[in-house]
Amino acid sequence: MEYRRARLKWNGWGWAERAFDLQGREDGLWRFLQTELGLDSLPLTPAASIDDLTLPEPALSSSQRAALSAAVGAEWTCTDRYERVFHAVGRSYWDLLRLRAGELDAAPDAVVYPDSTAALSAIVAWASAEGVALVPYGGGSSVVGAVEALREGHSAVVTVDMARMDKVLSIDPVSMTATAQAGIYGPVLEAKLQAEGLTLGHYPQSFEFSTLGGWIAARGSGQLSYRYGAAAELFAGGTLVTPQGPLSLDAHPNSAAGPDLRHLVAGSEGTLGIIAEATVRLHTAPAARDYRGFLFPDFASGAEVVRQLVQEGVEVAMLRLSDADETYFLGQQRSFGRPEGWLQRTTRGALGLVGGGRRPCLLLVGLEGTAASVSAARVAVARVAMGAGGLPAGAAPGKSWLASRFEMPYLRDAMLDHGLGAGTLETATSWARLPDLHRTLQKRLADSIRQVVDRGEGAPIVMAHISHAYRDGASLYFTFVFPVAHRGARAQWRIIQREAVEAVLAGGGTLSHHHGVGRDLRGWLVAEKGPLGVSVLRAAKQALDPTSILNPGKLLPGKAD
Amino acid sequence: MEYRRARLKWNGWGWAERAFDLQGREDGLWRFLQTELGLDSLPLTPAASIDDLTLPEPALSSSQRAALSAAVGAEWTCTDRYERVFHAVGRSYWDLLRLRAGELDAAPDAVVYPDSTAALSAIVAWASAEGVALVPYGGGSSVVGAVEALREGHSAVVTVDMARMDKVLSIDPVSMTATAQAGIYGPVLEAKLQAEGLTLGHYPQSFEFSTLGGWIAARGSGQLSYRYGAAAELFAGGTLVTPQGPLSLDAHPNSAAGPDLRHLVAGSEGTLGIIAEATVRLHTAPAARDYRGFLFPDFASGAEVVRQLVQEGVEVAMLRLSDADETYFLGQQRSFGRPEGWLQRTTRGALGLVGGGRRPCLLLVGLEGTAASVSAARVAVARVAMGAGGLPAGAAPGKSWLASRFEMPYLRDAMLDHGLGAGTLETATSWARLPDLHRTLQKRLADSIRQVVDRGEGAPIVMAHISHAYRDGASLYFTFVFPVAHRGARAQWRIIQREAVEAVLAGGGTLSHHHGVGRDLRGWLVAEKGPLGVSVLRAAKQALDPTSILNPGKLLPGKAD
Repeated sequence: MEYRRARLKWNGWGWAERAFDLQGREDGLWRFLQTELGLDSLPLTPAASIDDLTLPEPALSSSQRAALSAAVGAEWTCTDRYERVFHAVGRSYWDLLRLRAGELDAAPDAVVYPDSTAALSAIVAWASAEGVALVPYGGGSSVVGAVEALREGHSAVVTVDMARMDKVLSIDPVSMTATAQAGIYGPVLEAKLQAEGLTLGHYPQSFEFSTLGGWIAARGSGQLSYRYGAAAELFAGGTLVTPQGPLSLDAHPNSAAGPDLRHLVAGSEGTLGIIAEATVRLHTAPAARDYRGFLFPDFASGAEVVRQLVQEGVEVAMLRLSDADETYFLGQQRSFGRPEGWLQRTTRGALGLVGGGRRPCLLLVGLEGTAASVSAARVAVARVAMGAGGLPAGAAPGKSWLASRFEMPYLRDAMLDHGLGAGTLETATSWARLPDLHRTLQKRLADSIRQVVDRGEGAPIVMAHISHAYRDGASLYFTFVFPVAHRGARAQWRIIQREAVEAVLAGGGTLSHHHGVGRDLRGWLVAEKGPLGVSVLRAAKQALDPTSILNPGKLLPGKAD
Repeated sequence: MEYRRARLKWNGWGWAERAFDLQGREDGLWRFLQTELGLDSLPLTPAASIDDLTLPEPALSSSQRAALSAAVGAEWTCTDRYERVFHAVGRSYWDLLRLRAGELDAAPDAVVYPDSTAALSAIVAWASAEGVALVPYGGGSSVVGAVEALREGHSAVVTVDMARMDKVLSIDPVSMTATAQAGIYGPVLEAKLQAEGLTLGHYPQSFEFSTLGGWIAARGSGQLSYRYGAAAELFAGGTLVTPQGPLSLDAHPNSAAGPDLRHLVAGSEGTLGIIAEATVRLHTAPAARDYRGFLFPDFASGAEVVRQLVQEGVEVAMLRLSDADETYFLGQQRSFGRPEGWLQRTTRGALGLVGGGRRPCLLLVGLEGTAASVSAARVAVARVAMGAGGLPAGAAPGKSWLASRFEMPYLRDAMLDHGLGAGTLETATSWARLPDLHRTLQKRLADSIRQVVDRGEGAPIVMAHISHAYRDGASLYFTFVFPVAHRGARAQWRIIQREAVEAVLAGGGTLSHHHGVGRDLRGWLVAEKGPLGVSVLRAAKQALDPTSILNPGKLLPGKAD
């Protein structure tokens, strides 16, 4: 198993041997962070050792363990410390705080690895009969607590790791679909598809460490979703294993035979069933690619260009507009270089857009397709962007972004090693509301962080981008960096998060554009769906999982919320 | 009220004064039908008068009528014969058979016309308290029995006609969305949007006599759905009035905050609630249009071109491929003209594709957008179509189709006046399965019709087209014409329909691509969704409509099914 868990970090992102060398990098990012945050130093704040963690004994009887072993094999029924800790929580900032402090509230009593839909079904049937909670686990990259091993009143909790269900079952090149087991990782799936000249094109930031089933369950979106579709759209059909049996969703191209249950499965976050297999819609692997930047004097003018491009239907793969703060931050990384540098390559002088205190906004435009379609789109993009006062920043920022697009989670670990916290928040709203929501969130995040920071003389770093655009609106993704409180780091985070979510909802944004709800946001689900909407979701759960063994404590609000 | 019911036919399609003059038309269609079906004559088979119908007294007490009048006004609480008969059933062949025979199983005890969400809510609350069944009614154009006034064990049934809820509430030109009351008719909505330079672009064949709410509730698709989106995609949010209160669905451009309840409302056919208002996604009204034809030697080669065009992402608005039988049928109508004629305008000689017993297939390609995008698409379409052996048939068939695209339902009435039945069947499947499904359905429809025809020496007319194409598959729409049985016309239809639906399901097609399920197909819903899928839908209904007053007997299978 390529993704054998021992090869991965148990308390951070990605491959165990891979680290983001923040101190050693010459690009000034380290100095930049220290200066911006007004810190005297970036102290070493190493994580606890896995041996420091206190874990209760697994709450499974020997006969229960034997039943699990009978379903998946003894080798794949794990109760050792590494497996239990690895699977205890996801990879949110909140999760990392706890893992690094060596303090876990919960851990699975066992981790099982089914290798077939039959084995998965046996586990679900067993857990249902025993009243044991199951946590479906793909790549474990959730940043909203969707894979946390919560018992929620059950006698035990078992994590069902799907990593062995990693086969492509069939490819239909005529209908351009493929059916795969849900535990397949992004790079493995893409490699198999690209060998046939096809692509799924789903590239979330977690791409290297997330799975097909997880993408669908969390209703995720890849960076190129404008061209290739978000997970809910890619998902043509499949099989959900539930305590009431398998729910098969036929892969019709479209149907008016009642409500579309695929959209109930997409976003169900393992609370209705475990996705065993999925059929997904493919594209021809792109023959040509073009990623390049444009600079705008402010966020509003860049956002107008994004809106115009999607409303005109220009065939882009990605439109990613960073606000001034994020553009400035990107410019601090040597791999990106500075806006001045981008412009010198193309538009010397730059019309006063950079330098002298000006802080431009970078729009990255990604084009993929045939040589002809990319070429046509490039002309259309240049017409719209430059017509609205954008300056071409050349291919360098596009190249840098492509090279580093899966790197940020590694950087977060490095920051935590030096007392710096990095959180994210994402939402979506209509074009009409977007400028206000961007401004409001920017201010409210900065204000709320200031109130809970106990060191540093500078301002928190709060930066945002649009990464997913639609005809009727767009996403907003905020990243914020702040000194972790010496005392009360967890309380600090909770306050920031609450302020941010409430500002999102007050401003007409959705609770999540692509991260999902999980444990962390479930208290606000009723604000999004309304009490009646939540009651419909509860009813669906009752029909499929009457004893609530599936991923309890996630998505649906609890009694206390 | 423009669509006052007295202005419309109670037992047929459209405006009362409008008829399709089959006998008087010089285009030979009448002779063609008689010849093909091998009939000695086309007898006059007039419909019964409305006064021939036997209706029970309305089963509502005077206090119940008073309660309805209090909610919507006495003028809009109708119990007269015309209103009751008009609203008794939809407009399927099965419905017309019964209406024309003067034999109705059911009729609403009253018809009410709310003019606001508040009035609608009052009616739903009242019906819930009284245990009275409600049938939501938009344009009443259902061809699957979705508006039939069934009591299903309730004390009475009231039809809620939405025609007075016909206002556009707001237009957001920045986000390109509009919010309207759900009872607004297609032409009214389009006129208001086009006055602002916008369009919804939803043009089902029923466009002139169907409503926004009906499109969403039935999960319909317009003829140009490839460009403008199907109803479920256009539907960004709105309000559903349910016995448990209003369910508000926020109009976010995208969200990962749990399952997408819009896709539960779309396709719910009035069984979960009544759509009061909807926000829909718009496009810029097209500045340019180009509709033209290509001829292919057979259906398979035309289908390959359709597949290639959508999989390449060529920006078409519509791809409509008629099989040889449908192409031949179209050629009998003077407004269309003959394939020979189309070709003579462009490709004299026609390479032997027409004449001499050859029966080509017509592909109509509709392009809409800016002059530049239409021009670019036209080049791309010609490249693909002609590269695959298609011959350009010029703009004439496109023009004819545009002029007559809402006419077919009128023709059906004229046929019934002469003893001819016309049924339709629509499905969708993957590209890989499509050629087989087309062949199988063609044969099985012809065979089953032959067995239940009691006059005529010819073969039934069975013809089909692809009208909605997707990257992974396409729709198939069959129309079949046959002599109505002298005795047992209803049994004849039921046999044909059963055979057809079972052939669809056996061949891997969906139960419906855009007509919905209604009363007629609900017995097969479990074959499509599986028992567990149906149980989820039942659970959702239980949560929103615990006493099952909303559109009983529709969508969800009954005990007998």
